Amino acid sequence: MLSPSDRTRAGDLRSFRDPRSVAVVGASDDHAKWGYWIAQGALRGAHRRTVWLVNRGARQVQGHPAHPSVAALPETPELVVLCVPAAHVEAVVTESLDRGVRAFLAITAGVADDDGLRERLAAAGARLVGPNSLGVFDAAADLQLAWGHFTPGRIGIVSQSGQLGSEIATLAARAGLGVSRFVSVGNQYDVRAAELLEDLIDHDETRIVALYLESFAGGADLVRILRRLRAAGKHTLVLATGASEGSKRLAASHTGSMTSAIDVVDAACRAAGAVRVATPTELVELARFLSVAAIPAGPRVAVVSDSGGQGGVAADVASAVGLGTPVFSEELQGALGALLPAGASVANPIDLAGAGEADLMTYAALCERLVESGEVDAVLLSGYLGCYGEDSPALVDQELEVVDRLARLAQDAHVPLVVHTMSAGSAAVSRMWEHGIPTYPAVESALRAVARAAHLSAHPGRATDAPEPRRLGTGPGYWAARDLLQSIGVALPPGVRVSTVDEARAVAETLRGPYVLKAGWLAHKSEHGGVVLGLRTAAELADAFARMHGRLGDGEYVVEEQDRSPDVVELLVGARRDRDFGPLVTVGAGGTEAELWRDVRTELAPVDRATATAMVDALRSRALLAGWRGRPPVDVAALVEVIVAASEAVAADPAVAELEINPVRVSPAGALAVDALVVATDEEAGR
Amino acid sequence: MLSPSDRTRAGDLRSFRDPRSVAVVGASDDHAKWGYWIAQGALRGAHRRTVWLVNRGARQVQGHPAHPSVAALPETPELVVLCVPAAHVEAVVTESLDRGVRAFLAITAGVADDDGLRERLAAAGARLVGPNSLGVFDAAADLQLAWGHFTPGRIGIVSQSGQLGSEIATLAARAGLGVSRFVSVGNQYDVRAAELLEDLIDHDETRIVALYLESFAGGADLVRILRRLRAAGKHTLVLATGASEGSKRLAASHTGSMTSAIDVVDAACRAAGAVRVATPTELVELARFLSVAAIPAGPRVAVVSDSGGQGGVAADVASAVGLGTPVFSEELQGALGALLPAGASVANPIDLAGAGEADLMTYAALCERLVESGEVDAVLLSGYLGCYGEDSPALVDQELEVVDRLARLAQDAHVPLVVHTMSAGSAAVSRMWEHGIPTYPAVESALRAVARAAHLSAHPGRATDAPEPRRLGTGPGYWAARDLLQSIGVALPPGVRVSTVDEARAVAETLRGPYVLKAGWLAHKSEHGGVVLGLRTAAELADAFARMHGRLGDGEYVVEEQDRSPDVVELLVGARRDRDFGPLVTVGAGGTEAELWRDVRTELAPVDRATATAMVDALRSRALLAGWRGRPPVDVAALVEVIVAASEAVAADPAVAELEINPVRVSPAGALAVDALVVATDEEAGR
Repeated sequence: MLSPSDRTRAGDLRSFRDPRSVAVVGASDDHAKWGYWIAQGALRGAHRRTVWLVNRGARQVQGHPAHPSVAALPETPELVVLCVPAAHVEAVVTESLDRGVRAFLAITAGVADDDGLRERLAAAGARLVGPNSLGVFDAAADLQLAWGHFTPGRIGIVSQSGQLGSEIATLAARAGLGVSRFVSVGNQYDVRAAELLEDLIDHDETRIVALYLESFAGGADLVRILRRLRAAGKHTLVLATGASEGSKRLAASHTGSMTSAIDVVDAACRAAGAVRVATPTELVELARFLSVAAIPAGPRVAVVSDSGGQGGVAADVASAVGLGTPVFSEELQGALGALLPAGASVANPIDLAGAGEADLMTYAALCERLVESGEVDAVLLSGYLGCYGEDSPALVDQELEVVDRLARLAQDAHVPLVVHTMSAGSAAVSRMWEHGIPTYPAVESALRAVARAAHLSAHPGRATDAPEPRRLGTGPGYWAARDLLQSIGVALPPGVRVSTVDEARAVAETLRGPYVLKAGWLAHKSEHGGVVLGLRTAAELADAFARMHGRLGDGEYVVEEQDRSPDVVELLVGARRDRDFGPLVTVGAGGTEAELWRDVRTELAPVDRATATAMVDALRSRALLAGWRGRPPVDVAALVEVIVAASEAVAADPAVAELEINPVRVSPAGALAVDALVVATDEEAGR
Repeated sequence: MLSPSDRTRAGDLRSFRDPRSVAVVGASDDHAKWGYWIAQGALRGAHRRTVWLVNRGARQVQGHPAHPSVAALPETPELVVLCVPAAHVEAVVTESLDRGVRAFLAITAGVADDDGLRERLAAAGARLVGPNSLGVFDAAADLQLAWGHFTPGRIGIVSQSGQLGSEIATLAARAGLGVSRFVSVGNQYDVRAAELLEDLIDHDETRIVALYLESFAGGADLVRILRRLRAAGKHTLVLATGASEGSKRLAASHTGSMTSAIDVVDAACRAAGAVRVATPTELVELARFLSVAAIPAGPRVAVVSDSGGQGGVAADVASAVGLGTPVFSEELQGALGALLPAGASVANPIDLAGAGEADLMTYAALCERLVESGEVDAVLLSGYLGCYGEDSPALVDQELEVVDRLARLAQDAHVPLVVHTMSAGSAAVSRMWEHGIPTYPAVESALRAVARAAHLSAHPGRATDAPEPRRLGTGPGYWAARDLLQSIGVALPPGVRVSTVDEARAVAETLRGPYVLKAGWLAHKSEHGGVVLGLRTAAELADAFARMHGRLGDGEYVVEEQDRSPDVVELLVGARRDRDFGPLVTVGAGGTEAELWRDVRTELAPVDRATATAMVDALRSRALLAGWRGRPPVDVAALVEVIVAASEAVAADPAVAELEINPVRVSPAGALAVDALVVATDEEAGR
């Protein structure tokens, strides 16, 4: 069955999505066995490809002839599906490789992680999806080698958990969406999720990608592939766990994998132009939105309701999911007011105050004003719209006409309209979906989808390619850290190294007091009494040196001028190397209570000034920088330079494992690093 | 129609829920008019009560004879429903009062707020619900004088927004729940929500109360009534808005009402033993749970899944909604492990690792171990359970048997079992609901319901009755504030009043330095340069006095010993009088950045020690008090005494409008108020 040209392509993934022939090994008549479901699914594609059922004992399976082994098949199958017990997997693979098979889908669970088998597959140029895969489905290829129910559609699902992937497919089908391709990657013995995602880039049938990963090993590659998916016009919705101790514990126990910190996954999604969701339901709500509507250009939402109560609930939910309901301009309020009874609320939310009942077209007219105003990025209609025709047959046509006017508006303006309706499924609701107006029975579903879609426009993906490699020097101790910071342009207080009392006393000739004395070689100086602040004179400094030296002995002591800039805000800037995603940079509230408030923002490194500025803007403590309680604003631009420099350092020098500047004292006149720690990577430290 | 005994009862609310006769004034054949829907609904109860349709022009309405006016009716109706235009309301009410009518349901919107009409109603002993009501429904009384679709059931709905009430009823019906009574209170011209809630206390048909209010005017009474509902075994789910600027703006514009701060509403719910929800969907999710399941005694949830992915998602969602998934004891892990394949996760979450497929009874056995362990307050099953029989007919009976075992467990143990299932509605899912196991298609619905139900057990309601009234003295200035604090037992640094430089210098004879000098009569001392700290000697103090006096002139200056206790944490304790709910007490992180982190907890005052302790424990900055970064723990008990004292002061003395102690310096040795402000109520201040 395989032509020579097929053989040369056996290494790619075509064999998994549209094989010319498939053999189901372990095909069964027993409903309780996977071999039953996989064989049944395979036979559905028998009009398109040759399907062989293999069973050691049976002559017939599901009414079709069965073969005793792969060796006994009349031709070499392009794809072999393994539904046999784990103990038989190796024998079947060996026999199949001998027969010339180059693609395996291993449904079987409990297969030992065996490097020998992996090497034999590699030596033969063969690929394997699984083991412990729930299977593969491809709508266009009529391929169903998976357990589950699939409706053809536009969502491509790649999932490390077969059942979560299946839940997404099930919820999608219930929501009227379908699946273009489904791959349960299982234990990723050979073929990994990243390759399967790459395979979706030019898959025209796939418009939205749903990805679930428990482990983000190789995350940096993944980010590049997600960015290419985005560039190809496909949005990836990432379902990830690891936001709680419970899910981390389970992943470690379940697959032995370490989940990534959820804030790092979020940073990766921002860099990749993807968006994270927390549950299959949220994923499908968003997929529904993206499958018909334009993504909002920003977070400004107009709320329109025929009920003050529902409008208020919508405003609260909008705020809770990170959207804004800004007050409209006087001009827009005037235009809206002209369409509504006196006294109707027009500032945002808009309350129709009976105008909808009086004339259904008011909905369309209001939305037209809102969209053309340029003051909002999305319009939410909440309440009775969708029910008029259902309750009053005389209004059916008029309501559909409103929907058509709204649909034209949504199409022309790229400002999505989204509807929360009390109807479970009227003709008007169907029309809304058909015409690109997402419509939900829960207002939180509608607004969560808008918020996540707005996240996609705020984060179109950005290059995080490593800069030219550069050795910065990662010697031990504080003085070396000062050198590194100075070499990347971060300002420090003037300082000198001293090793004797006399040298300490002489410092006053070159530095101005008050002074700080540090035991520079200690990693945790403060905790070991290795820092003394506020030494006003050379005599005080010498005295402090003598006492510290008495306690800590010889070492590389550092004396610095103590920063006394007024109106300072202390932050921390850190950079480190993540196991999965590589270089990261973090900015956050500093000081001794930093840990308590966990007010930090992390991005993949390097970052440019715009991204660093956005990081600072995302902090809750941003308000402290803008002039808190009458203080002058501080020099945020200088802080941004520190963030950029730290991000480039960790990205450029693989020897830097960690770089922490805490605190960075940001004053109206600049940013000064007053303490820092550099940790070298293990290889580097071991030199 | 009215007997004398009925007349005497006309002032109560029976006429609104089961009138012997009703007249719909403004009854209509026009589907676009309220008079159509109300008349149609009223006629459904014609087997139980006399229904008259009143229309000025028509001789027939909806095929029934119509009457031209209330005066022309053959008898006096017990209830008149007003569906006439606003301009006609006064005339119809007047005519009806003359006729002897004592109950009105005003559907009409746009009725002016007219004290004259209100007085005439009161003089006649008549009551009015509305205007701008969407109507009233009572299932047991076959009364539907409301627009909308109602299924009879156990939820009593009282709503200030008719349409939100209607959305709740609609979603409830879709979820298989029904409504016992529905009252849209409209503009509460006369009958208020509190009375209608009181009327539900002994309404046996109502088991769950759904309340939406835009304004909580009279909130203190409401709290008492909600507590009585709870005592009667009924849970009240409070839907409230005001969590965003948008909803506050809308309420102010829509009904001219001020929303209450949402944290105050939450405090009221805790005191009342009620629970707040943010949307109708959340309300109905929770109502479904409460309608069949026991409320969990605490927040500890066991997660059981046949998918590592779904278990991880569940753990993350549990954490996000405030539940915990604690690690099980070694003993329990051992017992669970004995039921599962080697290597299955048993610490929590539990991963079945194929055990469910192998033997469905494993689900029941696991749950039995979990429930009898006493280590969890609820069990969540997430995944495929509910689908076995749907996909494999041979498993139908076995799955139902599992459900029956789970149901017995849930009933006996008072530990609720809750299921997230991938099935949309199998026989097993129906059986779960019938047998007291809430089952949801979204894991977040299941866990939100558990979390909110657990809130009810954490907050069973508590008495907040005002203590014996007591005048504390609310004179102006800091010295008077010190007096007040001393009189309620709050510790202050030693201090004296001074008015001349000599007096200031003499302070050193009685107080120990360093000193603080304050311009005691200024409300915002710091902002006006009215505080100087760190005055070490009598000379420094005298000098500072001279300079401050030079700037600020004569007044009541106060000198205090400056607190220098080590290892202090600064908090703020405040008490004030809320417009709606009355006395409140607040504790929060203090210092200049307090506003930024908004780490505060508010409760209705007074509070006892247990509640005050819970307030402190709810703070994010709680960790600072327990010994932050190696510091010794501070004296939380002393802080609790300050909170209790402040709460009792504002509750006991109506002259206290506000009392703010900021900061309270809490050290390992006690709590010291080092600055305070007392504001008298307007009447008091004007004396």
